[in-house]
Amino acid sequence: MTADVARGREAIAWVREFSPVLDGHVRSVLSDGAIDGRKVAVVVHLEAKTAFLALVLAEAGADVVVAGSNPHTTNGDVVAALRADGLQVLAHEDAGIAQWEQDLIRVADTHPELIIDDGAELTIRMAKHRPHAFTALRGVSEETTTGTARLEAMHSAGSLPFPTLTANNARCKHLFDNRYGTGQTTIQSILRLTNRQFAGATVAIIGYGWVGTGIAAYAKALGARVAVVEVDEVRALEAYMDGHEVGRTADVLPKADFVITATGGVRAIGAPEFASLKPGAILANAGHHDLEIDVPALGTGREVRPQLTSHNLGDKQISLLSHGALVNIAGGSGHPVEIMDLSFAVQGLGCHYLASHDLPAGVHVLPKELDDSIAAARLAAAGIRLDQLQPYQLDDVSEWIG
Amino acid sequence: MTADVARGREAIAWVREFSPVLDGHVRSVLSDGAIDGRKVAVVVHLEAKTAFLALVLAEAGADVVVAGSNPHTTNGDVVAALRADGLQVLAHEDAGIAQWEQDLIRVADTHPELIIDDGAELTIRMAKHRPHAFTALRGVSEETTTGTARLEAMHSAGSLPFPTLTANNARCKHLFDNRYGTGQTTIQSILRLTNRQFAGATVAIIGYGWVGTGIAAYAKALGARVAVVEVDEVRALEAYMDGHEVGRTADVLPKADFVITATGGVRAIGAPEFASLKPGAILANAGHHDLEIDVPALGTGREVRPQLTSHNLGDKQISLLSHGALVNIAGGSGHPVEIMDLSFAVQGLGCHYLASHDLPAGVHVLPKELDDSIAAARLAAAGIRLDQLQPYQLDDVSEWIG
Amino acid sequence: MTADVARGREAIAWVREFSPVLDGHVRSVLSDGAIDGRKVAVVVHLEAKTAFLALVLAEAGADVVVAGSNPHTTNGDVVAALRADGLQVLAHEDAGIAQWEQDLIRVADTHPELIIDDGAELTIRMAKHRPHAFTALRGVSEETTTGTARLEAMHSAGSLPFPTLTANNARCKHLFDNRYGTGQTTIQSILRLTNRQFAGATVAIIGYGWVGTGIAAYAKALGARVAVVEVDEVRALEAYMDGHEVGRTADVLPKADFVITATGGVRAIGAPEFASLKPGAILANAGHHDLEIDVPALGTGREVRPQLTSHNLGDKQISLLSHGALVNIAGGSGHPVEIMDLSFAVQGLGCHYLASHDLPAGVHVLPKELDDSIAAARLAAAGIRLDQLQPYQLDDVSEWIG
Amino acid sequence: MTADVARGREAIAWVREFSPVLDGHVRSVLSDGAIDGRKVAVVVHLEAKTAFLALVLAEAGADVVVAGSNPHTTNGDVVAALRADGLQVLAHEDAGIAQWEQDLIRVADTHPELIIDDGAELTIRMAKHRPHAFTALRGVSEETTTGTARLEAMHSAGSLPFPTLTANNARCKHLFDNRYGTGQTTIQSILRLTNRQFAGATVAIIGYGWVGTGIAAYAKALGARVAVVEVDEVRALEAYMDGHEVGRTADVLPKADFVITATGGVRAIGAPEFASLKPGAILANAGHHDLEIDVPALGTGREVRPQLTSHNLGDKQISLLSHGALVNIAGGSGHPVEIMDLSFAVQGLGCHYLASHDLPAGVHVLPKELDDSIAAARLAAAGIRLDQLQPYQLDDVSEWIG
Repeated sequence: MTADVARGREAIAWVREFSPVLDGHVRSVLSDGAIDGRKVAVVVHLEAKTAFLALVLAEAGADVVVAGSNPHTTNGDVVAALRADGLQVLAHEDAGIAQWEQDLIRVADTHPELIIDDGAELTIRMAKHRPHAFTALRGVSEETTTGTARLEAMHSAGSLPFPTLTANNARCKHLFDNRYGTGQTTIQSILRLTNRQFAGATVAIIGYGWVGTGIAAYAKALGARVAVVEVDEVRALEAYMDGHEVGRTADVLPKADFVITATGGVRAIGAPEFASLKPGAILANAGHHDLEIDVPALGTGREVRPQLTSHNLGDKQISLLSHGALVNIAGGSGHPVEIMDLSFAVQGLGCHYLASHDLPAGVHVLPKELDDSIAAARLAAAGIRLDQLQPYQLDDVSEWIG
Repeated sequence: MTADVARGREAIAWVREFSPVLDGHVRSVLSDGAIDGRKVAVVVHLEAKTAFLALVLAEAGADVVVAGSNPHTTNGDVVAALRADGLQVLAHEDAGIAQWEQDLIRVADTHPELIIDDGAELTIRMAKHRPHAFTALRGVSEETTTGTARLEAMHSAGSLPFPTLTANNARCKHLFDNRYGTGQTTIQSILRLTNRQFAGATVAIIGYGWVGTGIAAYAKALGARVAVVEVDEVRALEAYMDGHEVGRTADVLPKADFVITATGGVRAIGAPEFASLKPGAILANAGHHDLEIDVPALGTGREVRPQLTSHNLGDKQISLLSHGALVNIAGGSGHPVEIMDLSFAVQGLGCHYLASHDLPAGVHVLPKELDDSIAAARLAAAGIRLDQLQPYQLDDVSEWIG
Repeated sequence: MTADVARGREAIAWVREFSPVLDGHVRSVLSDGAIDGRKVAVVVHLEAKTAFLALVLAEAGADVVVAGSNPHTTNGDVVAALRADGLQVLAHEDAGIAQWEQDLIRVADTHPELIIDDGAELTIRMAKHRPHAFTALRGVSEETTTGTARLEAMHSAGSLPFPTLTANNARCKHLFDNRYGTGQTTIQSILRLTNRQFAGATVAIIGYGWVGTGIAAYAKALGARVAVVEVDEVRALEAYMDGHEVGRTADVLPKADFVITATGGVRAIGAPEFASLKPGAILANAGHHDLEIDVPALGTGREVRPQLTSHNLGDKQISLLSHGALVNIAGGSGHPVEIMDLSFAVQGLGCHYLASHDLPAGVHVLPKELDDSIAAARLAAAGIRLDQLQPYQLDDVSEWIG
Repeated sequence: MTADVARGREAIAWVREFSPVLDGHVRSVLSDGAIDGRKVAVVVHLEAKTAFLALVLAEAGADVVVAGSNPHTTNGDVVAALRADGLQVLAHEDAGIAQWEQDLIRVADTHPELIIDDGAELTIRMAKHRPHAFTALRGVSEETTTGTARLEAMHSAGSLPFPTLTANNARCKHLFDNRYGTGQTTIQSILRLTNRQFAGATVAIIGYGWVGTGIAAYAKALGARVAVVEVDEVRALEAYMDGHEVGRTADVLPKADFVITATGGVRAIGAPEFASLKPGAILANAGHHDLEIDVPALGTGREVRPQLTSHNLGDKQISLLSHGALVNIAGGSGHPVEIMDLSFAVQGLGCHYLASHDLPAGVHVLPKELDDSIAAARLAAAGIRLDQLQPYQLDDVSEWIG
């Protein structure tokens, strides 16, 4: 199927229709000229929602260069539409790893001042391969927990010479994106790819952070019995109080019909854990890139449905979804539009904030008032008004401390 | 994409893996020879789950002829696989209405003795166009509420000369299929086709029968505010007690982001109701064929995403999913495998029962013990054992009635 | 504490405030004189909600005699208030069994024409002890499943010479009373009597009919892991699809922190099942009178909190709530007001229907239009209006059956 | 009813049975002698759970003096049991405010070294009335958000000369206590005190912090339509995404059957908001002492049920629960045992930590490893074991940062 500008534009227009914060509040903040003429690299999964963010930045005068944060998630129609609108796009649909890496280096060679990054994929490559361009960066606004961890490691090592903002620590990002966005879309992707149901099934979730909590809540709501594996004691207790079964992989995997990884780390399950799996179990990853399931240890699979491969483990067959990549992105359309409206508003305002303030080097959080302004804009778009806190509603302790 | 036997066989093998009742209990019951040599027509949405039912019947000796119950839902790979296994298939992928109707007449002309029908689509056409073959039928096992209503109307009119079984009145069908099956799959299809979220959205559901109840429960579980329109007072009160908002279309539609029809009747919403819609509202049908939304009254639409058309209603744009056809089938893969294992077990045992018993003409229900045997087989496949009711656990009223 | 008329009246006034159906629609139907001058016995748990029903009947001209359906649930303040309003009350707060039985015989001796009964407690005693008064009865409107089973047994034995109405088969009774009423109140009573929590606990539910389903849904919603014991295969499969664990008592009891009986039969659990209990387990009954837990087999207990007795079973201690009586009534205030407004509306209209129609002997159901009228009145009281079904919304099959 | 030592001891024994963390892990930590001989004041709602904490401290050698943190919540049986075990108790059941304040001063005069405080009630009074004893304090472990705010205000004003620990910032406290504890018990108290139901009702919740979130989730789970008032934009958006209606008091109160305050501040609703209330509305407070509902503005009420007063507001009657005090404590039994096992473990370990470490003056948080140890002990008591994080499961960024 050849790339189609009109189809790409329709997809972006659909996103715009349900993105009142980007389309209103963010556009308004960006209109002050702070990013006008700046070279801004946008390196996020390259589909319609990302495209709309790039267009909003471009309309505010930024010189935008766009690439994908993952070789498998670039949409050709969207690339065509962006190019038709005059943006520089250095990405290929269905790129291999090598092509994708090369595209990122090409982005580095455009000498961006600001980056909107995902997993710090561009930032770390610039650090390694284009040190001069790296040092010249004015700032990076990072999307994910993983990317933030990388930036913090660089900062700890004294290797981060510019300020960065971590979107994930903004409440308008992590409160909504991880739970509602990943929760809903992970499950809808799994159900669609398998034509199975959760009612009555046992779903094991490895990792009970924000993402795992969201997936677990949705799975339970859809009728699954949820079993959680978590190494942190307090989170494990939270899973227990949420009514889920809690245990080790060795306890949980033998009964699981579906196993979903969401640890945010790497190699959550591999050969030793596979030995515990029930025959017919289905594995999906909702956490860290394609690193949580040890795919090589599964051996070569046979595709039995789109994005569903069957693997022979000697004593049993198990199935893997989307080759272990993020199932809600590789096997679906990623986050809902409404969620990305909030997350990209954090990124858009973050980019603007980096352009208009001189922050020290390091990893920073978007100021609370900007974070709040996003929620306020979203509520206003839904026609919701709030009361104001009144001075007499504050607890007064002055009488005790005179 | 050309039809591929191997791909069709993989899809059917996947269904078999998660269909323990059809693959075990039903196969066992059918092995007594009762349908051996019988001409059985299977007219249900022609995809992998239906194909597995047809194969089970064929392996029991039936002379199976297969067609689709809907012009849009026939899967070419599956047709190819069935034909490769020697079954007669009179269906075309992406048939137009005319071709599909012609295929059904061709099925009638094979003179089936038994029909497994969906919506009574074959039965009513045989009544009208092939009266001799119709009169010669031994029995029909019908899948849906709509089809049952049609058979009952025929019976009331004195036009049903043979016995029929209504699968929908079996507990193993209606308790699970409508709520869990349609509930889950309707919502996963809507979310996928729109890339939207339910968290925070208002979802209007027209009709609060088994299907509407299931959709409402899943929508609420996914974070939607649910508003229900229902003409039956007791069902409306049930919706109210379930925590949903309840009202007339005129009350409910102006605030709905999504509108889902599930009345089981026809023309649930049309021009007068469209006038109440909120701009940007998304319409989907989960009820009766493509008859619940008055699609012609929406005028010609513009496709903005796959199976999503935008319609200009003068003062606003609204979107329609899957052209008003059943969104979980036309825009998804229909019911989960586990659900159809139960529903098709009802059909398989129903077909066997019609073949081996002489029932009077009319609309019958599968005997309770057969219905129970399906649930028992499903539980056994899940490794679940039950206690037996003990005589001393029955309330004894004999002392009072001398 | 001596009985207090004022306190009783306040309690009844509270009930009236949230009983719009009894106070409006039922009062209006009863005003036609059909029960004027009739002797009506009301034998239901004698607290404020029952009292309000009795007063509505009395205000319509009935000659009402009131007694309790259980020795332990009669409220002295309410009795005093009813007597102050001129009603005949044959009941004692904290009656023993003997006193309670004697009170019922005294009711029989008033020669009632109509009975509103609960568990058929008065009806069966009249059959046995006052056969002439029994034979002279015009009709009985029965509240519960248990009572209905008793009436049907009498009818099967040819021993029921008058018509009866079974409230439980009215949709306005069983759809709401069992699930919402018993569900909510059983759980709130258990939590209050124990000061424990359900978040994280395992709750075993014996019986998955309407009552057990409601309790299970509420328990799960409060964070419990729910395990269900059920002898009916289809219900067991429903529990499984609802996401609960399903098994035999021997599988389920060893892990249960709470065990709730809801079979509607007798002796759901006794000595053999007690052997499987986890130390510290808490037993409560939500089903049939005080007959579902074999209390004598627990031996004498030690009261450690109000209505909570600890029993030494040799190798472990377990706790019993409310001495095995219905925990939501004996250990709480019974159904919520809103639920009894519906259920007693069924009873009030049932009593009126028996008085104004000549039905054959047997067990009947309230006509659908009366049932519907109750729901309509309740919705109207909540300010809710419904659309009307339009003729063009019916599926037309006439073209096929010409 | 006279105080009864045996009854008090039974109540405390019940608490102990379901407090494995206090009874095991905490007892073990405290056995090192660090608090042996120390004068420790325990000033928390004085009922059985608090009593068990006091006994654990005393058994570790502390010289414990106990008082209540609220005049209305002291249980006489429990006081008698503690005294019979040799503890000094300076509290009276049903004390008036004056008596209660006087009791606190008496505690101050015992010159405690360490305080386990609730709302900082003792600490602030010592600061004002017993400055010398105040200055001599070694440390305070505080239970609540409100108390923490008070301590922080004192610290900001330079008036806090010793270290304090804020239990509420421990994850084992705030993750469980506010959501599960207050959520469940607030709702069970409201339902019991009113004999009403939530199914179908509209419940307004003022404040969507941890407590409001918990109440809202439980209310929704019980079938209520939930409407939230919140002044913080992000929390308001969270409520919206959780599927609740969100708005101003003026939008929300006119439709609310129940109104629950949970802001943590003062005067959440008063005369202007009362004007918006629906007739018959029921008000309850789950937040800050008895300060969230402006009770004087309601005028004198008439008691119509225990702890339920009816107030005439001219054009309508409304009802107030528990006189505006915390409805789950004043109208119930406070938090479940399991929750207080965790919260009091935080307090017990906090007291031990203050005794064995020299912290600077100010407001501190319990070290993470102690917090984690509580969760670990709780899980172990439930028989749950966890996997350990493996080194190879950490994302390695070293390759990027050379």
